[in-house]
Amino acid sequence: MLHGKRLVLAAALAGVCMNVRADEGMWLFNNPPKKLLKDKYGFDATDQWLEHIRKSSVRFNSGGSGSFVSSNGLVMTNHHVGADTLQKIGTKEKDYLKTGFHAKTQAEEVKATDLELNVLMDIEDVTQKVNAAVKEGMSPTEAQKARRAAINEIEKESNEKTKMRSDVVTLYQGGAYHLYRFKKYTDIRLVFAPEKDVAFFGGDPDNFEYPRYDLDICFFRVYENGQPAKIEHYLKWSPEGCKEGELTFVSGHPGRTNRLNTIRHLEYIRDKQMPSQLALLRRREVLLKTFSDRSLENGRRANEELFGVQNSRKARIGGLGGLQDPAFFAKKRDEEKKLREAVEKDPKLKEQYGAAWDDVSAIVNEAQAVAKRFNMFERGQAFNSELYGIARTLVRMNAELKLPNKDRLREFGDAGLETLREQLFAESPIYKDLETAKLADSLAMLVEEFGAEDPLVAKILAGKSPTARAVELVNGSNLDKVATRKEFAQQGADLTASTDPMIQLARLVDPVAREVRTTYETKVDEPMKQAYAKIAKAKFAVEGDSVYPDATFTLRLAFGLVKGYQESTGETVPALTTLGGTFKHADEHGNVDPFQLPKRWHDAKGSLNADTPFNFVSTADIIGGNSGSPVVNRAGELVGIIFDGNIQSLVLDFAFTDEQARAVSVHSAAIQECLRKIYGAAALADELGK
Amino acid sequence: MLHGKRLVLAAALAGVCMNVRADEGMWLFNNPPKKLLKDKYGFDATDQWLEHIRKSSVRFNSGGSGSFVSSNGLVMTNHHVGADTLQKIGTKEKDYLKTGFHAKTQAEEVKATDLELNVLMDIEDVTQKVNAAVKEGMSPTEAQKARRAAINEIEKESNEKTKMRSDVVTLYQGGAYHLYRFKKYTDIRLVFAPEKDVAFFGGDPDNFEYPRYDLDICFFRVYENGQPAKIEHYLKWSPEGCKEGELTFVSGHPGRTNRLNTIRHLEYIRDKQMPSQLALLRRREVLLKTFSDRSLENGRRANEELFGVQNSRKARIGGLGGLQDPAFFAKKRDEEKKLREAVEKDPKLKEQYGAAWDDVSAIVNEAQAVAKRFNMFERGQAFNSELYGIARTLVRMNAELKLPNKDRLREFGDAGLETLREQLFAESPIYKDLETAKLADSLAMLVEEFGAEDPLVAKILAGKSPTARAVELVNGSNLDKVATRKEFAQQGADLTASTDPMIQLARLVDPVAREVRTTYETKVDEPMKQAYAKIAKAKFAVEGDSVYPDATFTLRLAFGLVKGYQESTGETVPALTTLGGTFKHADEHGNVDPFQLPKRWHDAKGSLNADTPFNFVSTADIIGGNSGSPVVNRAGELVGIIFDGNIQSLVLDFAFTDEQARAVSVHSAAIQECLRKIYGAAALADELGK
Repeated sequence: MLHGKRLVLAAALAGVCMNVRADEGMWLFNNPPKKLLKDKYGFDATDQWLEHIRKSSVRFNSGGSGSFVSSNGLVMTNHHVGADTLQKIGTKEKDYLKTGFHAKTQAEEVKATDLELNVLMDIEDVTQKVNAAVKEGMSPTEAQKARRAAINEIEKESNEKTKMRSDVVTLYQGGAYHLYRFKKYTDIRLVFAPEKDVAFFGGDPDNFEYPRYDLDICFFRVYENGQPAKIEHYLKWSPEGCKEGELTFVSGHPGRTNRLNTIRHLEYIRDKQMPSQLALLRRREVLLKTFSDRSLENGRRANEELFGVQNSRKARIGGLGGLQDPAFFAKKRDEEKKLREAVEKDPKLKEQYGAAWDDVSAIVNEAQAVAKRFNMFERGQAFNSELYGIARTLVRMNAELKLPNKDRLREFGDAGLETLREQLFAESPIYKDLETAKLADSLAMLVEEFGAEDPLVAKILAGKSPTARAVELVNGSNLDKVATRKEFAQQGADLTASTDPMIQLARLVDPVAREVRTTYETKVDEPMKQAYAKIAKAKFAVEGDSVYPDATFTLRLAFGLVKGYQESTGETVPALTTLGGTFKHADEHGNVDPFQLPKRWHDAKGSLNADTPFNFVSTADIIGGNSGSPVVNRAGELVGIIFDGNIQSLVLDFAFTDEQARAVSVHSAAIQECLRKIYGAAALADELGK
Repeated sequence: MLHGKRLVLAAALAGVCMNVRADEGMWLFNNPPKKLLKDKYGFDATDQWLEHIRKSSVRFNSGGSGSFVSSNGLVMTNHHVGADTLQKIGTKEKDYLKTGFHAKTQAEEVKATDLELNVLMDIEDVTQKVNAAVKEGMSPTEAQKARRAAINEIEKESNEKTKMRSDVVTLYQGGAYHLYRFKKYTDIRLVFAPEKDVAFFGGDPDNFEYPRYDLDICFFRVYENGQPAKIEHYLKWSPEGCKEGELTFVSGHPGRTNRLNTIRHLEYIRDKQMPSQLALLRRREVLLKTFSDRSLENGRRANEELFGVQNSRKARIGGLGGLQDPAFFAKKRDEEKKLREAVEKDPKLKEQYGAAWDDVSAIVNEAQAVAKRFNMFERGQAFNSELYGIARTLVRMNAELKLPNKDRLREFGDAGLETLREQLFAESPIYKDLETAKLADSLAMLVEEFGAEDPLVAKILAGKSPTARAVELVNGSNLDKVATRKEFAQQGADLTASTDPMIQLARLVDPVAREVRTTYETKVDEPMKQAYAKIAKAKFAVEGDSVYPDATFTLRLAFGLVKGYQESTGETVPALTTLGGTFKHADEHGNVDPFQLPKRWHDAKGSLNADTPFNFVSTADIIGGNSGSPVVNRAGELVGIIFDGNIQSLVLDFAFTDEQARAVSVHSAAIQECLRKIYGAAALADELGK
């Protein structure tokens, strides 16, 4: 499924994509494809229509999208976006993933421990301001620092002036910088979720497949001052939903695409980066599965994380499968050849941009050289533990807050501090047994990667085996207590005196992590930005101005038709499934987990309209992060909610195709039918769109 | 669990182990620890006693051990040794792993498709003969070839003369060569197996753990000329079994130990070899789990292989955990230092053996350099498919049989041809969907390892993606039909004309595979043998003559006490569990898979004697391959059957310890109780030991 959170391992490189054909594009709301929609579909995307859709759209800080669906603060997203909250508010006795959740009154709505929701209120182009900070003749390090300082200042100034969350986002691989101002909601309460058995019906086997039969929905309500927030822009509900062949729109937060990548870069991703990410994901999958299987309670503690890892693993296998297809690669190779030839022919373009492809190749070599140390120490793969993550944040915060805002590491800028503190002090449960298992395994990986004789490894292990050391670190740490964290987070706290072993470990590792981060930022990140900015501009110069930037977790508008497709084996896959088909699908798989429907589904079967459309596919251009995005019709009414892409959609990371790639959604008609007839949630159903 | 088949990835290096303390040792039957047993336990291991135990012991060609338990050909082994047969004789409708199997009459006994059982009748020391073939001044390649030729000849001559299966086994890392003559049984019929749910109760979570509650047993009967074979040497049954503190003996086939390995070599295993094996195992585990989960039938097809992979993965994590413990490593380092100092002090020893440790270090570097190509092409990891394995055997057989016996690849020597043909023509089912999934994934791995632009990789993929190519290869091949195989296996068949895509692939890869095999044999295998032979002799010279060789899948005698132990957390683990405890263990895990007992267990609960000992641990020195080994008392009566080692026993690969390491067995009393009261198998129970 398309959860943005699952993308943490993805390449953090974005670009610009053009040559629009078909229903391609993840469009900026301040540069929408008005002409294209008018020419191709005779549809007028008015400014008013666009503003309404934008302000009805919601971003989850945990990764994922959603939308307002009532004036009373009701937000709809995917079950798998809300699952983290379901897990966290659950206990050994109350497993909401198993039973589902339904607050029959507002008093029963339960506050999420650490959710923040953002609504994009305003966009300002600050490209000039950011670029002005970079002076002629600066080294990459200096340029990177100057740009970061400018961004920190812009965000701080905006935040102070407007009191809104203010993020400068990088678009077109540094070709543009936009300041996004968000209305921020932090009191988010759970209203309704079905059982995971039907939200994720078919489990990992059916994930990224189609036909599907999943009720992957979940409702929250945002509160302000202890009351449901009054919402101006929310989506009307279309009870009959969409039909085959209909034009639909998707508004959400696609996480990352890499469509501008050079061939050399794609080769690196195909041959080195993805295989190494997959090795890590498989390792974690086996670890978490093993842990889960030891007892029911272990399963409850680890299943959400396991499910995320499986999802990432399957997504990456799909993407890698696309890259390993010689035909796909030949097409990309051909496109690059044509663009480079056009640049070579024009002396001015050649001088400005001609070297950029070779630059990328050289930077890719640098990336390869630094990747292992960067992943292990700075990304923290060697210390797969929440307690370690907390310790590191505390150690860095302690050091960074002594510096002026502009000189800090990006994530400690003043503008983001409030959110950072909210996360750091969240009362989410930390399970020491799971922590120990994860940390032991990742320390073992550290030994495998660098050898036990490596001086830093030896210091980290402190003469113990990875398992013994993990036991010592986790059991010895008090960072599971929020009070301890608050104490350490106080301005001027003396962490050098702390005897907490996690704090000590984070202090030991931090100089190395910072060093490799600097290497990465100056030798990979910044030069890569500059090289891709050149390629983006070259493409722009050669191919015209009808462009959208690579996905960067910013709000985008996509569109497409509700449409089936043909499998490679020749089989025709219909566009829509039905509620009746769900029971058949369960029967065909022996009605056992993960094809076991909740009891109340069987109880309600007789009263359900079996022909109600349940899931549907469309050609809209989406990717991970779009999970929970509303699907709307021309009238701006909600007709569905995105929850997945099929396996063929996973190459959309690198290029658009609508031959077989499809976005998968839950249909609005099924949501109404299920809420009323299966869950006895008529009040909630009545509120939708009102 | 300790299935030898799971060891295919293990380092194929063996040595010699001395300095016997405690209950250490995997002893040769022709060099048993008579004095030690007499001194320590006052036990006389007479030649007659030893011969009886040896001839009652059985080796499974599929990996694993067993014993004759009646005069009428009855053989007892582990369920997990017989599981491969249970899976192969099953169908979609008859899942014997699920239901168990019980032939109430001999007519109902079902023939295994491809089992061969061997009984070691005779041992001859042929060290002089083999070594005589290696002349002064030969290069390693020549020496290796000469030795192989001599071994092929000895085996052939013995086979022709005695009509017995004749294998020359390498012991003490080339310090000795013994000719083993086996009585061979090929008509093996399944008699009884319980449900896998109780044979492998606790599943992967409980595997390699203790306390345990598993009925990991299975009975076969060997036939000759269509009648149950008459057996002279079989084990009497001890109905009351063993008690805590009692001396017991284990006779079985430990697969591989590496106790002589140098520190540099252990570092290589710890830092490179095991991590890379684990990466492959995790990859296969995720693949097989994903395949299994798609449908019930998929699960039936793949679960046995999945279970093998999980077992190997857990075993290796245990072993690696031991190696990553600095204390364990320091002890090994200290031992090596002492031995090397002793050698350095003696001018003669120094001249003969002093360089061997540095030699090993240099060879380890060679091993590291060749490992990837050797594993991918010669070991066939890039082509994880039974059909490919068949194709390669056919292609090689075609070429090798044109050569004189002495010049052939080891596995095509005349002596082994009959067995090879039996395996090649076995009517075991081949599932093309599973084949495709496995081959696609391993071809993807090939691309990841060498890059899609590698010329050989490009030829192998033939312009297709790994998945498309796998579909083409598997669907296009007729090698799933035994008749096709027989045709291709005919002397002088022209395989160059075959259009079978698997045959074509095997022909494409074979030159590269042979080349890397030659490199491996001449630069790694042979020089390593010579270096370790020196180290073995040096150890012998310094430390005395009370020695046993590293395990090599040859029959060994181990001994030890029935004895509990203390966990690192301080918890005391008792030596024996009971049948009653089984139900409690199931309750504590919610009675769900893999802690779900078969219905007939619950039905019989009331009639069972809850205090019957079920599983027990002992200090006997065992390792993978010992699965199914009989455990006997001083009187030579069967008191149990080995089926596992605890997680702490997995370092026994590298050094003996009896602090926490324990062998895990099923108790003979529980077997009787379960057969009679749960399975209504009184006739079988009556036959045991008769």
